[in-house]
Amino acid sequence: MIFTLAQIAEHCDAQIKGTDPALEITSAADIMSAQAGQVTVLSDSKYKKYLTDCQASACFISSQFDASDAPQQMALLVCEDPEMSFLAAVGALHPSPVVEKTISGKADVHESAQLGEHTHIGPFSSIGQHCEIGDQTEIYAGVHIGNNVKIGKHCKIYANVVIYDNTIIGDHVVIHSGSIIAADGFGYKFRNGQHVKVPHVGNVVIDDHVEIGANTCIDRGALGSTSIGAGSKIDNLVQLGHNNKVGRSVIICGQSGISGSCTIEDGAILAGSTGVADHVKIGQQSVVMARSGVSQDVKAGTQVWGSPAKDRKMAWKELAALSKLPDLIKRVKDLQSRLEKLEK
Amino acid sequence: MIFTLAQIAEHCDAQIKGTDPALEITSAADIMSAQAGQVTVLSDSKYKKYLTDCQASACFISSQFDASDAPQQMALLVCEDPEMSFLAAVGALHPSPVVEKTISGKADVHESAQLGEHTHIGPFSSIGQHCEIGDQTEIYAGVHIGNNVKIGKHCKIYANVVIYDNTIIGDHVVIHSGSIIAADGFGYKFRNGQHVKVPHVGNVVIDDHVEIGANTCIDRGALGSTSIGAGSKIDNLVQLGHNNKVGRSVIICGQSGISGSCTIEDGAILAGSTGVADHVKIGQQSVVMARSGVSQDVKAGTQVWGSPAKDRKMAWKELAALSKLPDLIKRVKDLQSRLEKLEK
Amino acid sequence: MIFTLAQIAEHCDAQIKGTDPALEITSAADIMSAQAGQVTVLSDSKYKKYLTDCQASACFISSQFDASDAPQQMALLVCEDPEMSFLAAVGALHPSPVVEKTISGKADVHESAQLGEHTHIGPFSSIGQHCEIGDQTEIYAGVHIGNNVKIGKHCKIYANVVIYDNTIIGDHVVIHSGSIIAADGFGYKFRNGQHVKVPHVGNVVIDDHVEIGANTCIDRGALGSTSIGAGSKIDNLVQLGHNNKVGRSVIICGQSGISGSCTIEDGAILAGSTGVADHVKIGQQSVVMARSGVSQDVKAGTQVWGSPAKDRKMAWKELAALSKLPDLIKRVKDLQSRLEKLEK
Repeated sequence: MIFTLAQIAEHCDAQIKGTDPALEITSAADIMSAQAGQVTVLSDSKYKKYLTDCQASACFISSQFDASDAPQQMALLVCEDPEMSFLAAVGALHPSPVVEKTISGKADVHESAQLGEHTHIGPFSSIGQHCEIGDQTEIYAGVHIGNNVKIGKHCKIYANVVIYDNTIIGDHVVIHSGSIIAADGFGYKFRNGQHVKVPHVGNVVIDDHVEIGANTCIDRGALGSTSIGAGSKIDNLVQLGHNNKVGRSVIICGQSGISGSCTIEDGAILAGSTGVADHVKIGQQSVVMARSGVSQDVKAGTQVWGSPAKDRKMAWKELAALSKLPDLIKRVKDLQSRLEKLEK
Repeated sequence: MIFTLAQIAEHCDAQIKGTDPALEITSAADIMSAQAGQVTVLSDSKYKKYLTDCQASACFISSQFDASDAPQQMALLVCEDPEMSFLAAVGALHPSPVVEKTISGKADVHESAQLGEHTHIGPFSSIGQHCEIGDQTEIYAGVHIGNNVKIGKHCKIYANVVIYDNTIIGDHVVIHSGSIIAADGFGYKFRNGQHVKVPHVGNVVIDDHVEIGANTCIDRGALGSTSIGAGSKIDNLVQLGHNNKVGRSVIICGQSGISGSCTIEDGAILAGSTGVADHVKIGQQSVVMARSGVSQDVKAGTQVWGSPAKDRKMAWKELAALSKLPDLIKRVKDLQSRLEKLEK
Repeated sequence: MIFTLAQIAEHCDAQIKGTDPALEITSAADIMSAQAGQVTVLSDSKYKKYLTDCQASACFISSQFDASDAPQQMALLVCEDPEMSFLAAVGALHPSPVVEKTISGKADVHESAQLGEHTHIGPFSSIGQHCEIGDQTEIYAGVHIGNNVKIGKHCKIYANVVIYDNTIIGDHVVIHSGSIIAADGFGYKFRNGQHVKVPHVGNVVIDDHVEIGANTCIDRGALGSTSIGAGSKIDNLVQLGHNNKVGRSVIICGQSGISGSCTIEDGAILAGSTGVADHVKIGQQSVVMARSGVSQDVKAGTQVWGSPAKDRKMAWKELAALSKLPDLIKRVKDLQSRLEKLEK
């Protein structure tokens, strides 16, 4: 899409400083690579060094920011929240392709399924008995949905997602390709030399505005539900085990694994490749730093690191101490021999 | 399903204590959430605190367990192994949905494939040349099976699983959605500045009663087989590399990765997110604790932890010592200055 | 396939020593399991102990290697590079099955897609608008390709791969089953208590001769591209986040995760289960050892280990020191009390 500077300024809550408001903007780019005809953003002072030589035709910038270095050709788009204004510009200049909504003749939709208005079902997808799919929801190709599944309105379920029976999904939920929702959890009892399977008769409940990345696995509850609260965002290749309760606005980054029966409270952040043991509680707004393994409850508002994870500052202190350890061993040896001399 | 207390007691090898044997039980729940009409279980003393206020109509309990705290309305189902009796009740009250077995007209089954009796092939699945599928085996939607694949009886292959050529699968095997069986292993020789691919002409052999979770990858052997012994259970998002030999009744938890040419002996347990280097042997009944990275053989019956993994007790001792290190550094400094004083 | 020893020697640049050149070889095996009729290789002296009792009919061996232990029946195939000669023999004896190339009537190819000569499109695959698929490229069953995707010549896209819009793929690229190319990256801005999605309008660009394993995720760029250079090899279950720039001939082993906006320079090796934080540069020919977590740039040609990763030798020194720490604590206590005695 092409917009004039004036249109972008209006759409993105910004004031134009310099240059012709009729100038045409064709796309968005970051400040290191933006060219003529593009709009960019400067919201972080560490990128300020790129401003002088930037070829962009326009740049979102905060009114607090000193932009005296900006090159001549560049219009400034002064605004309160440059990051958000820029995202709005990106969205306008690069709109998502409109899917022509159809129920593909090559899909396999059970006659008992109820489809809302303007739903899209791609080819080679299957929808089981007694499912309900809300208005405007798009289900891409190769998606397989079991029986008694409810999906709300305005959802996007990308290609090759699998959703097992009895799953309940809210509105505006996005699930990227290859993710598996509500497979059996991993539970066995060991009897007579054999692992006897714990039947998994629970389900998965996903609230509104949740986004789930690609190839992620959310297991069903053994009894009861595995649940994900509204607005939570889960990255790729995440393992969310049976009966976990994930709160609202939680962030779980790529390749993290949460065993089972954990509680992840509202606003908690789990960075990449973290792990959480069974039955652990991760408190509100707490942060589990990357690659940490959590085996005990994490208090609300705290930050933990390491494996096993502990208070971030304490863990870093130990880490710093460890780097001094080889030298410490030598010093202790030296003290020992000096002490021996004194003792003689 | 609804059963009377008497039916449940008989099915689950328990004796009723209290209440009317004709009472109807409609479902199962854990002791923290069970309501009237539900059956629960108390097998772990740490949940005993929930007994007094539990609303369940019935509770499985061991004859050794003191249940004097049990509320009035609750029937006790006294039995030898409450966990197993409860699982039997869960299975009876929440039976797996019966799949109406058909060969979908929307599947693509090669004419040379041999299908056993009462097999199920879902829509949009493909089965290659010279495959054999055993009696009662269910293959869900979107499953793609290469050529010369043999799958035994009573297996469940969930939606969107892919099985490459020449794989051999026993009876009663379950593979959850999105798992990839027998893709090429990761092997290259570096010559003239390029990575030259090692051809992978082996296969994967999976024995009876194996269960594989969702989005797990089991690579084929380079030469010979990657094999998984009877009764082993593998969780989600696990990477099992080429030419690994996994024994019987092995447990491999979520997101673990086993490089290649390893031997995992019978009854070994690999907890979540563990890693094993090439050519390592994990001994019988040994335990690799969560998030450990194993680079050397693990002796039968031992427990290891850490990265690199070592004997659990030794690793924990070091961990405890590490937490004292920042203080130790201060103490050594103090000793040093006191020693210097003495030396003067 | 069956070949005579003479044919194999010629095909694999080797000289026959001993035995009849007309002897028939039916397959290849490793030196521990090879039987009569099979060819094997001895390229690593640690396997020399298996030579004496090896039943193989022929064995590739370097002219530098002392093979006086070789059993009577075994022909020696003397060559310069036994590993490569053996791979050539494996490839000849166990050729990849020839796919009969057809455009399946059960696929869903948009009328605007351009297919090259001798392409193969498997059943239940879908190809979107304005795609271009090069000559000889094979797309297996259940693959879903968005709009405006370009795939070069001689590629193999295995079953159930998903490729989102605007992806560009070179020639001779292999992508194994279940991998997801160009899903949205994981980016949100936190405003008013909510995570606001960063639109991902970039793409993924994959150069020639790249191989990608099973169930791997390569996210699209937010703006601009996520790119993978020629000849790079990526294993299973890898997470490659948005806007990463991966160079040429890079190796990324299983379950590794690279956050975003990183630069992985030519020839770098990331061993299994490694992690790389945002905006980090991994230098040319450097090695990140298994299970390491990299949070700072890695210099060209260096090797790093640990989490956080540091110079390999330094990290190992600290590790060795840690194992002495429990004892060190005791020794310091002892010094302390002896010093106190002296001070009195």
